[in-house]
Amino acid sequence: MTGVGPVGVVGDDVLLARAFLSRAAEPACIPLWHLVRTHGPVEAVSLLRRGQVDDEMLVGLARRIEAVDPHADLEAADRHGVRLVVPESDEWPHFALAALERTGEARLAEFLGGKRAHADGGEPVPPLALWVRGPLDISALAVRSVGIVGARSATAYGHRVATDLGYGLALRDFVVVSGGAYGIDVAAHRGALAAAGTTVVVTAGGAERAYPSSHHGLFEQAAERGAIVSESPVGCAPRRGRFLTRNRLIAAFGTGTTVVEASARSGALNTARHAQKQGRTVMAVPGPVTSAMSVGCHDLLLQARGPCDLVTGVDDVVSAIGSSGDLATALADGSSVGNAPTVGRHRSASAVELRVRLDELEAAPRAIYDGMPAARSITPDELAASCAASVVDVIRALPALELAGLVERTRDGYRRCRAPAP
Amino acid sequence: MTGVGPVGVVGDDVLLARAFLSRAAEPACIPLWHLVRTHGPVEAVSLLRRGQVDDEMLVGLARRIEAVDPHADLEAADRHGVRLVVPESDEWPHFALAALERTGEARLAEFLGGKRAHADGGEPVPPLALWVRGPLDISALAVRSVGIVGARSATAYGHRVATDLGYGLALRDFVVVSGGAYGIDVAAHRGALAAAGTTVVVTAGGAERAYPSSHHGLFEQAAERGAIVSESPVGCAPRRGRFLTRNRLIAAFGTGTTVVEASARSGALNTARHAQKQGRTVMAVPGPVTSAMSVGCHDLLLQARGPCDLVTGVDDVVSAIGSSGDLATALADGSSVGNAPTVGRHRSASAVELRVRLDELEAAPRAIYDGMPAARSITPDELAASCAASVVDVIRALPALELAGLVERTRDGYRRCRAPAP
Repeated sequence: MTGVGPVGVVGDDVLLARAFLSRAAEPACIPLWHLVRTHGPVEAVSLLRRGQVDDEMLVGLARRIEAVDPHADLEAADRHGVRLVVPESDEWPHFALAALERTGEARLAEFLGGKRAHADGGEPVPPLALWVRGPLDISALAVRSVGIVGARSATAYGHRVATDLGYGLALRDFVVVSGGAYGIDVAAHRGALAAAGTTVVVTAGGAERAYPSSHHGLFEQAAERGAIVSESPVGCAPRRGRFLTRNRLIAAFGTGTTVVEASARSGALNTARHAQKQGRTVMAVPGPVTSAMSVGCHDLLLQARGPCDLVTGVDDVVSAIGSSGDLATALADGSSVGNAPTVGRHRSASAVELRVRLDELEAAPRAIYDGMPAARSITPDELAASCAASVVDVIRALPALELAGLVERTRDGYRRCRAPAP
Repeated sequence: MTGVGPVGVVGDDVLLARAFLSRAAEPACIPLWHLVRTHGPVEAVSLLRRGQVDDEMLVGLARRIEAVDPHADLEAADRHGVRLVVPESDEWPHFALAALERTGEARLAEFLGGKRAHADGGEPVPPLALWVRGPLDISALAVRSVGIVGARSATAYGHRVATDLGYGLALRDFVVVSGGAYGIDVAAHRGALAAAGTTVVVTAGGAERAYPSSHHGLFEQAAERGAIVSESPVGCAPRRGRFLTRNRLIAAFGTGTTVVEASARSGALNTARHAQKQGRTVMAVPGPVTSAMSVGCHDLLLQARGPCDLVTGVDDVVSAIGSSGDLATALADGSSVGNAPTVGRHRSASAVELRVRLDELEAAPRAIYDGMPAARSITPDELAASCAASVVDVIRALPALELAGLVERTRDGYRRCRAPAP
């Protein structure tokens, strides 16, 4: 295999297997994710190729994988400057995808319990691989980034607000995340680019192409300054199903997601719903109650389905992301947060159990844990400073600490889990 | 004395005393309210006339009352079709003013405790008398009425929304309450009048005049269909101080108050603040975040100073007024409600005490109490139906039951107080 971009120490067999899975596994589904988690990507591909799977969905999938050629996909990607980022590589956005890991686990438990997972616009599972074009190291996504989403048929008002938000957030060093569509998406990116900021286009087709094609210039700018990210290999056309699964990634890549304008049934509301499920801060910009393009925003603000903050500008966005109190508190207050991830599920661990888990840690995550304050939340940036580590080191260690039940995610960052009072 | 309108069985001495107080007592203040509550209106006037008062504010007031001629004021009112409504008359809006009685009592306790009451745009005390022009019996105000307030320099958007709200609420038999100003006020009234509804103008000058004078036609329509209400006698010009004290009455006369458009320092926010202090439902209409005329609305929605519901139309207003849960719950949840009235302050009464209070009731309020459900809130309308009484009878009985600590106001209506669990 030749011509694959920088991939750390990932073996070719893993890369090929992930490229294969990326092409074969569409849409993202619980059974395949489970297969890969259980057997690893190489063995999972081998089982699929040999038809040694019993799940109905996987049997169907195994039948149509004959034509998949991961060598060709990786070579085509290389020709277009697109690299394959996989969970085994240093660039994998573990931090951004930790919430999808949790929601995926919850759905998996239902699935294994006999309940067929219901596809409501993208299974809440992490992607199996990501195709990326652009200089941005995507491993740090969701640390300081904001999704800005909304209607394709935005009004002049929505265009203006999205541009202002993109511009203002970029000036404050937030990465802007959105799709590549007409309307709010393009306005948000252009605002960020006007401020010489970093912008991430999460696209539903291959990362080499612009969709819509009239946004070619915008995609090229994003590829120069930030990244174009896709779950689909080079050459894939954006299809409806891909937009829906794509939305969960926009939600995952933002520390919070802001809906600028949305009609009552806008796809942006699907993204907001994903963000709520992932425990992210969801925000909506109000608008004229006489405007059909603001109905979706007002619905979000009025609905009890999940928390949504009203934001009128950059200051409100920064404050909503930074100081909304932690999600565990919101849950304790009885706020409805839909299928929010199970924050604090390890809370019932005894002090002795926590001590055992701590002793099992390797040196690096142990140092990160030791750098956390005893009682309050801390952001990855602050934690990096307090541990004299890089932010990337911190966000690599956090998911492991979280899975061990030693730390938990809050809306302000992370904090140590506590043993219950005896 | 001649020519005074219908006043029930109120004696001329009381009417003259209240007319005198209405002219002399400006602005509304705690010491005078206390004097009248302690001695009754006739004796209070006598004490003032003889200078037998020791409070500093009352001494100053006693000096400048020489010229007050209540006979002349009552005759002038009669010539203009304006009647004097006093607490001793059947038409007094006890129901609407019950919250001001409570906030007044709380402020009085501070005052007697040595804290000078701070005038923050109208002392939270009930008026001493009201001058009214129009056929509406104002005793039923706040049962099914909505205050619609906002900027004088409203945008076309604000005009449209206020007109639509006034129209839609009038169609659903809500009385619309507002001031008489340019902008949102006039739009709300015109909407209600267009639906052949009932509208109440609470004005800062005499009830006989329109202010601004270009709204003469509107005031006459309100006087034909609803009422013009003022604390000031006929002939008084609207002055700045009168607008501020007036705002607490707009808040009191609405079951809830809706702010349609407001700049950051709009007087409408003062009205909303009064409504919050009185435990009323406060609502705000969102608008473009790029519009200075919506900044005040968004501030209300963003601020933690008091609860405010986002409303996008008539349905939201009706639902916010009717189903927001009771204020006691909001207080228990720790929501900040500023200086909200002390709902449930009798809660600590024992079952025996409640029984004693019940036994002391007269037949009429006892029948109303007996008609209330054991555990849930009931609106005055429902209560009237369940007791086969008139709504007016019900809302006359409720304040007495409330003062006796037998019932308490909720955002849905009223409910029985309970003795705490033993």
